[in-house]
Amino acid sequence: MSMVPLNLLANGETGDYLVTGSWSQKAYKEAKRLASIHLAADSAADKYYTIPERNTWDISKDAAYLYYTDNETITGVEYPAIPEVEGVPLVCDMTSNFLSRPFDVSRFGIAFASAQKNFGPAGLACVVIREDLIGKAGPKTPFLCDFKIHADNESMFNTPPTFNWYMAGLIYKWIKKKGGLKAMDELAKERSNKLYDVIDNSGFYTNPIDKKIRSRMNVPFILKDDELNAAFLSEARQNNLIELKGHRSVGGKRASIYNGMPMEGINALIEFMQDFEKRHG
Amino acid sequence: MSMVPLNLLANGETGDYLVTGSWSQKAYKEAKRLASIHLAADSAADKYYTIPERNTWDISKDAAYLYYTDNETITGVEYPAIPEVEGVPLVCDMTSNFLSRPFDVSRFGIAFASAQKNFGPAGLACVVIREDLIGKAGPKTPFLCDFKIHADNESMFNTPPTFNWYMAGLIYKWIKKKGGLKAMDELAKERSNKLYDVIDNSGFYTNPIDKKIRSRMNVPFILKDDELNAAFLSEARQNNLIELKGHRSVGGKRASIYNGMPMEGINALIEFMQDFEKRHG
Repeated sequence: MSMVPLNLLANGETGDYLVTGSWSQKAYKEAKRLASIHLAADSAADKYYTIPERNTWDISKDAAYLYYTDNETITGVEYPAIPEVEGVPLVCDMTSNFLSRPFDVSRFGIAFASAQKNFGPAGLACVVIREDLIGKAGPKTPFLCDFKIHADNESMFNTPPTFNWYMAGLIYKWIKKKGGLKAMDELAKERSNKLYDVIDNSGFYTNPIDKKIRSRMNVPFILKDDELNAAFLSEARQNNLIELKGHRSVGGKRASIYNGMPMEGINALIEFMQDFEKRHG
Repeated sequence: MSMVPLNLLANGETGDYLVTGSWSQKAYKEAKRLASIHLAADSAADKYYTIPERNTWDISKDAAYLYYTDNETITGVEYPAIPEVEGVPLVCDMTSNFLSRPFDVSRFGIAFASAQKNFGPAGLACVVIREDLIGKAGPKTPFLCDFKIHADNESMFNTPPTFNWYMAGLIYKWIKKKGGLKAMDELAKERSNKLYDVIDNSGFYTNPIDKKIRSRMNVPFILKDDELNAAFLSEARQNNLIELKGHRSVGGKRASIYNGMPMEGINALIEFMQDFEKRHG
């Protein structure tokens, strides 16, 4: 996220940001420290439970790019489609939903993602960048932060994380074998819809996000009674259902269900949630 | 190597460099682009086959640090001991000989190393830093280049390369089990001395480096007749001896023999070298 302003705003240009959660806020803060930045929209007043309507976005004249985070992992908010903007390159952090649905790469100036959610072990990032955006870094940019250095050296200017690359290659093959990005999207929708249905049809669990922007990757939910949070976690653990604690900023629970989560995991969680509700609801 | 000037020279201080090969030269060039730098010594005129004598080093008054590369992989030149300097923090790139011998950590301002030679899969670096050198980065330093961010967050501000960490942990345990750094040093000396003996006792192979500064990690050697280079490589490969081509800047052959190289590998190479000499010498 530092590399975007370092590479695209070195000559005093302005970068626009849509802040819809923790990750886009971090990117905005870091960019603000490094370059000239403009806040085009911000859902902080809504606790990041919403994505501001398109017609409210205040995009700068001559913005060098419009930055957004496709999926916010903490609140579970995901852009349902690529934002419709004209004449400004889109820069998208896809870390938490990359390769979980097809996307039209020609719509982006930069689309980037770290590996650890959907395509490999942590320690690797993939950057898709439009060629005319390469080579604009300032003269004092550390060489590892300069897209041109990486592009000119086929991502091997430094010794690359070879094992992580190899693993990512295996995941790419696995995704293809499973039917590609379209199949990943269908599976992601099926997984998340099953969970949202259980939540919405219950008087015990709630999720505050509008259906149109609910994340297919992270499904947060609140229990009717906060006092049951500890019991839920410990009983879940007894059923081999782990890492379900919600982020402290929103509380409750969160099921993170990336490409690697099999449907059996979703079914087991649903069974446990319904049983827990029966006993404690 | 960018992080050193970004963190220690942000207020106009000067960093001093000893350039004794390809890696220290790269570090010097990068630092020169980013900050105020002084060349304290340089063995380019000797093709980086030497380390300039201590009494020839021109260390700046009030240098913020003295930077050197402990082992140069291309020419096979290694500092036999920690340089004797007073009143200036030593900054050392130990990438290619880290954990191959004991070192007095209190002598260093910063000692750093990438994993891929001696302690784990590529994609990880270890930085040992004196606490008073943390927190000096300039205000426009990208957060991932700021030692303070990493120190304050126990190296987990970003998602760390978890598998690589785990593997490094296994290697640390392996090193301890083998007898620790003293044992690593003894093995490294035994491996390299065996090879240098074969080279020195042959009229066919040569190594131009003075015995006092020969690397224990990388043993380059030149064949008597350049025309035999291709035959050496292809016959070596038939004997399962691979990656022996020397760097194009020095030619010849190079045996890189890091901690992970068993003595059997050295013995097999020696047997092949002596046999090749008999047949082609």
